[in-house]
Amino acid sequence: MSFLKTISEKQARGKVKEIYEDIKKIRKIKKIPNFWKTIANDQDTLERTWNSLQQVMKKGSLDPLTKELIYVAVSMTNSCEYCIRSHSLAAKKKGMSDIMLKELIAVVAMANETNRLVESYQVEVDSFLK
Amino acid sequence: MSFLKTISEKQARGKVKEIYEDIKKIRKIKKIPNFWKTIANDQDTLERTWNSLQQVMKKGSLDPLTKELIYVAVSMTNSCEYCIRSHSLAAKKKGMSDIMLKELIAVVAMANETNRLVESYQVEVDSFLK
Amino acid sequence: MSFLKTISEKQARGKVKEIYEDIKKIRKIKKIPNFWKTIANDQDTLERTWNSLQQVMKKGSLDPLTKELIYVAVSMTNSCEYCIRSHSLAAKKKGMSDIMLKELIAVVAMANETNRLVESYQVEVDSFLK
Amino acid sequence: MSFLKTISEKQARGKVKEIYEDIKKIRKIKKIPNFWKTIANDQDTLERTWNSLQQVMKKGSLDPLTKELIYVAVSMTNSCEYCIRSHSLAAKKKGMSDIMLKELIAVVAMANETNRLVESYQVEVDSFLK
Amino acid sequence: MSFLKTISEKQARGKVKEIYEDIKKIRKIKKIPNFWKTIANDQDTLERTWNSLQQVMKKGSLDPLTKELIYVAVSMTNSCEYCIRSHSLAAKKKGMSDIMLKELIAVVAMANETNRLVESYQVEVDSFLK
Amino acid sequence: MSFLKTISEKQARGKVKEIYEDIKKIRKIKKIPNFWKTIANDQDTLERTWNSLQQVMKKGSLDPLTKELIYVAVSMTNSCEYCIRSHSLAAKKKGMSDIMLKELIAVVAMANETNRLVESYQVEVDSFLK
Repeated sequence: MSFLKTISEKQARGKVKEIYEDIKKIRKIKKIPNFWKTIANDQDTLERTWNSLQQVMKKGSLDPLTKELIYVAVSMTNSCEYCIRSHSLAAKKKGMSDIMLKELIAVVAMANETNRLVESYQVEVDSFLK
Repeated sequence: MSFLKTISEKQARGKVKEIYEDIKKIRKIKKIPNFWKTIANDQDTLERTWNSLQQVMKKGSLDPLTKELIYVAVSMTNSCEYCIRSHSLAAKKKGMSDIMLKELIAVVAMANETNRLVESYQVEVDSFLK
Repeated sequence: MSFLKTISEKQARGKVKEIYEDIKKIRKIKKIPNFWKTIANDQDTLERTWNSLQQVMKKGSLDPLTKELIYVAVSMTNSCEYCIRSHSLAAKKKGMSDIMLKELIAVVAMANETNRLVESYQVEVDSFLK
Repeated sequence: MSFLKTISEKQARGKVKEIYEDIKKIRKIKKIPNFWKTIANDQDTLERTWNSLQQVMKKGSLDPLTKELIYVAVSMTNSCEYCIRSHSLAAKKKGMSDIMLKELIAVVAMANETNRLVESYQVEVDSFLK
Repeated sequence: MSFLKTISEKQARGKVKEIYEDIKKIRKIKKIPNFWKTIANDQDTLERTWNSLQQVMKKGSLDPLTKELIYVAVSMTNSCEYCIRSHSLAAKKKGMSDIMLKELIAVVAMANETNRLVESYQVEVDSFLK
Repeated sequence: MSFLKTISEKQARGKVKEIYEDIKKIRKIKKIPNFWKTIANDQDTLERTWNSLQQVMKKGSLDPLTKELIYVAVSMTNSCEYCIRSHSLAAKKKGMSDIMLKELIAVVAMANETNRLVESYQVEVDSFLK
């Protein structure tokens, strides 16, 4: 939105500046991407999102690559261009090959088709699924 | 829909019967789930969907479990109850633990949040993402 | 919602009563469906919706059946059960056969799949489409 | 995505080349649109999508124009720009006039409104619709 | 769409011209925005939308600013760029500060997250909510 | 999902128990709603969501009722029944009258309609909106 400009690294003060430093160190990047520079307009959202993402995306029973693939799949279903591009890049850094990306897309597309088949036909939940 | 009933295994004839047998053999199940019994109303859709799913979900660079997790993630984003339940069960059979499911949900929810942050703030695509 | 009950035909007064009569006469039905009895909570929305639907759905360059099929297709894409059921019935009254319904569903499902392929691959708009 | 470029007609080999030829012949076009050139990155998806679309969109109980209008309606509901533009052009070639397009849009918009009315008011499914 | 151009103020005739004058007077603007100039292709939709919007957005139990904030929230959830931009501007004219916008976005994003948590976990409706 | 049962108040231990107590005290309720009892399966998500919601929904430049109305509007657009019901109740407790709810629904429905008009007609962003 025209009235909400990004907060550049030079403009960053206090908590925003700290989080910018943190992002660059942990993500091993030299420049802050627009996502962070935009939501930095709202310091609380910046902090909450940064902390939440680290908690949610860290290695658990699912490895970080699988989590990133899921992130991309959701972003594709929501048609969020920025999210598709940035999380595809993140997935690539974590080991996603081009073939894996193509397979991911095929699954996402197919799931969207059968999701609609189910809703269109109003398929009843089987008793063994309840 | 009231006027499109499921095609029971007893009613199945010809190609539908063959596909039902195929599903039971390959999926190692004894009863055909409602999804297949409902789309069986349209023989072409039944055949196309069964063939496509086998092609798309087979082991590739992504293993079958990861593909199933992606399927569940899309279904959650689309709020398709039947799809969430049936593909969660499929994922479970392929090795998804309860902890993995919880982590999957956390990623899906978080991705839906940041997708909206991006759209709401109209975040511009960074040049390194183009 | 528990606090917004339907307005029964007996309870209807003034403009709501008139519109109920109008709906029954024009639609040739004996009972007012829940959709109208629910939005009747907001008299302005009831009137506006009834008038708009008549204008939008009337015979034009597209015949009423085609318009109804489009209505169903949108409702399927939005997974609105009530809308799918009620507009499928309306389409049936206007001549939709079971085979037409199955073909409609196949198109809806396929379109949802290719829509996601386009977004996932970030397909660029061809110059001849601009 | 920057790392998934389109496969030009010159680069096409084997099955991709064959399908490109097929598309040009059957669709009576001289150049392959970006949609096909992009999904050609995944030969299986290219083949499956091309075959499925021909099966789903062929003349049946619904004529090809009606199917195309449904395709456009879904794409509009999903806000898929490429899909709206390409399928509107396809519909135009099959006989859609500008007036038909405007009527189509009015129905799509109205359906999206009443879909939300239904969900917002949590309208209960009438017993005659079950 | 290439074949549906905007109707400029100079080209406007009859009812379209009248509504353009009305919009400029009531909205206190000097130029008609693209939204109106585009839907003017369909005179009925132009008239219906203009009348409906005035009815729906007028001061009621909810003040016009609150209604505008709701409009923006829906547009953000639907990722409609034009709608986000134009209704944010409208909200700003009615008193929305930058801080209010940021808080609005935080709520929209959070709601989208918990909506998915509910669907993903298939949370059952509590009896006190029925 | 059948394999993810709610965590009852009796079963709650450690951090889950503490948060349950916190919810009951701050929300002034006697029983924990299903939303919390379900996401309690994932302690981290429970804690993160509870903390985030308190931060996001607290009085700011927007008052708590307005924030709640926005929450309901998003939930209606996403067709999340549980979310619509629970946040409508929360809004009611904060002062939402039945008339306000009806007006809210009218705005949500109208916004969904014009969002689709914009996407269907591919309305170009005015230069004054950039």
